[in-house]
Amino acid sequence: MNKPMENGFSVAMKLVAGKWKIDILCALSGAPRRFGRLRHSIPDISEKMLAQQLREMETDGLVKRQAYPGLPAKVVYSLTEAGAALCAGAEGLCRWSERFQVRAEA
Amino acid sequence: MNKPMENGFSVAMKLVAGKWKIDILCALSGAPRRFGRLRHSIPDISEKMLAQQLREMETDGLVKRQAYPGLPAKVVYSLTEAGAALCAGAEGLCRWSERFQVRAEA
Repeated sequence: MNKPMENGFSVAMKLVAGKWKIDILCALSGAPRRFGRLRHSIPDISEKMLAQQLREMETDGLVKRQAYPGLPAKVVYSLTEAGAALCAGAEGLCRWSERFQVRAEA
Repeated sequence: MNKPMENGFSVAMKLVAGKWKIDILCALSGAPRRFGRLRHSIPDISEKMLAQQLREMETDGLVKRQAYPGLPAKVVYSLTEAGAALCAGAEGLCRWSERFQVRAEA
């Protein structure tokens, strides 16, 4: 009876594992962003790393990439419904940490 | 601006990392349980592993251990307020997985 819960949780966790995906979800939760703007809103991420994370998140159905014709082409990233919902879930856990001042800092 | 979110999320995640802690949170979310009953409700966990996980969760403030005198002594485990709230947060992510049928099964 517990396994589906554990599995569902693990699936969600796998999607945001790694150093940057939570940051990207947060950065896109306010509004869609162009690549350059997105990069500036996440300190320390490299262009290559951001591009790779975005590709993975697009494959996972969390992020939508929309290209508009023109020179230079304008590419805008936004959260899908699933991405926005995952961000909300992650925020819930974040608020939990703030509220309970957990002792796991060590 | 994103770092506190990422850090808070990571803190919560660290507390439930590992194979069993989500299962234990779930099992205790319905009602407090004695050790033996708890063990039976989580298939495949060994006595040693359950004891170890419970000790860690007690240290982390997620689980409360209450011993009642008698022979044999009765020891009951329950979720603290923090543990119950973390369980609710984890359930949110679990429901997310169910709802969005994420493609991360592979």
